[in-house]
Amino acid sequence: MSNNEHYQDHISGKFNSELESLRNQLLAMGGLVEQQLVGSLEALQKIDTGDAETVIDRDAEVNRIEMSIDQECAAIIARRQPTASDLRLVLAITKANTDLERIGDEAAKVAKQVLRISDDAESPSKLIEVRHIGEHVAAMLRGALDAFARMDVSQAVEVVKRDAEVDREYGSAVRSLVTFMVEDPKCVGVILNEILALRSLERVGDHACNIAEHVVYLVEGLDVRHGRLDELREAISAS
Amino acid sequence: MSNNEHYQDHISGKFNSELESLRNQLLAMGGLVEQQLVGSLEALQKIDTGDAETVIDRDAEVNRIEMSIDQECAAIIARRQPTASDLRLVLAITKANTDLERIGDEAAKVAKQVLRISDDAESPSKLIEVRHIGEHVAAMLRGALDAFARMDVSQAVEVVKRDAEVDREYGSAVRSLVTFMVEDPKCVGVILNEILALRSLERVGDHACNIAEHVVYLVEGLDVRHGRLDELREAISAS
Repeated sequence: MSNNEHYQDHISGKFNSELESLRNQLLAMGGLVEQQLVGSLEALQKIDTGDAETVIDRDAEVNRIEMSIDQECAAIIARRQPTASDLRLVLAITKANTDLERIGDEAAKVAKQVLRISDDAESPSKLIEVRHIGEHVAAMLRGALDAFARMDVSQAVEVVKRDAEVDREYGSAVRSLVTFMVEDPKCVGVILNEILALRSLERVGDHACNIAEHVVYLVEGLDVRHGRLDELREAISAS
Repeated sequence: MSNNEHYQDHISGKFNSELESLRNQLLAMGGLVEQQLVGSLEALQKIDTGDAETVIDRDAEVNRIEMSIDQECAAIIARRQPTASDLRLVLAITKANTDLERIGDEAAKVAKQVLRISDDAESPSKLIEVRHIGEHVAAMLRGALDAFARMDVSQAVEVVKRDAEVDREYGSAVRSLVTFMVEDPKCVGVILNEILALRSLERVGDHACNIAEHVVYLVEGLDVRHGRLDELREAISAS
């Protein structure tokens, strides 16, 4: 029986309904944060201030759910005193919960950049880079949440792998946007807002990557944070 | 007996040496991260690539210590099955540990901006804003660590209060740097690197603020995240 099957079995068999409910709460939080991210990207694409404001307003709900999940994690540890993989699950949920809340924050920041861009309509925007990276990190978040839901290590590794691509794309997009700024100084304001939105999206990729790493930690018991991707794959294939 | 005295008493009396050692490890991690932040600010002030590289190299050590503290937290929960304030301490340490590691990341990002700024010497830099905000967030980090070491809620509240100032200063610095960019397009590259360094510093302020909020949670048992400062003060004075 692989670690993965063992883990699945453990979830369905021995975890009590509290742990199962906690895991579902995290996945629901993930779904809400994904909506927030997609909403902020749509607002950015259409420079739609109404959509942007919806995202900004809903950030308070994300924050409330984060606190409630954390309280539930603490209550379960105190009540059930879990050890081994049960404890690992609760600790991974509290860490992933923080990452999701920070992704929600970044989505709200992107939405705030939309309000600034809409105020500052001197120039057509160069939103193509932002859209591309936005789609990329939204797919990473979806992948990380799926990997968490199915405890799928190979999907988690794919998410980690994509993060390196996003970082490269971010660097190259910033360089090209700087060239536009130099060529056309009246675009400086708009383009700076785009660069700051890009940086938020790059951060979303980092957090999605963290969530994927928690999946590896859960299933394989390996702490793969801060490791290079090659080492991660090697460690997984050796385990 | 105030909550604070109760807490201090509890630490000295009942916490065993494992918990005390865990707390000391977190404070040592805090000291290292503070050095990283100050080092990155000095490198930025002098555009010193040697200092910047030292900060970048030492980030791996920060990452190793983060993982070791997290492992220790999980081991203590599994071994000792703490409840109430012992459990709160361990959970607050694991959260503060994440914030410290992210501050270390931001310091490394500032150091990387120094390498880019040194490559791109078209224009004198407008580093005055960066220096000012840098000093501000370094003081916040020091305050948050002191508040954690002494379980001092009023100092923690001061840190939270300063974060709002940093956010205002950040906004005003970015606006003034954009004006420079528009006036002198050949400075665009240098100034953008400064804006990105500023954004990293603003993020350091957010993480210092999170650490201060963990102190309030520890001493008062209040989860003050996402609350407005007034509500925080009100909740504390009512408790």
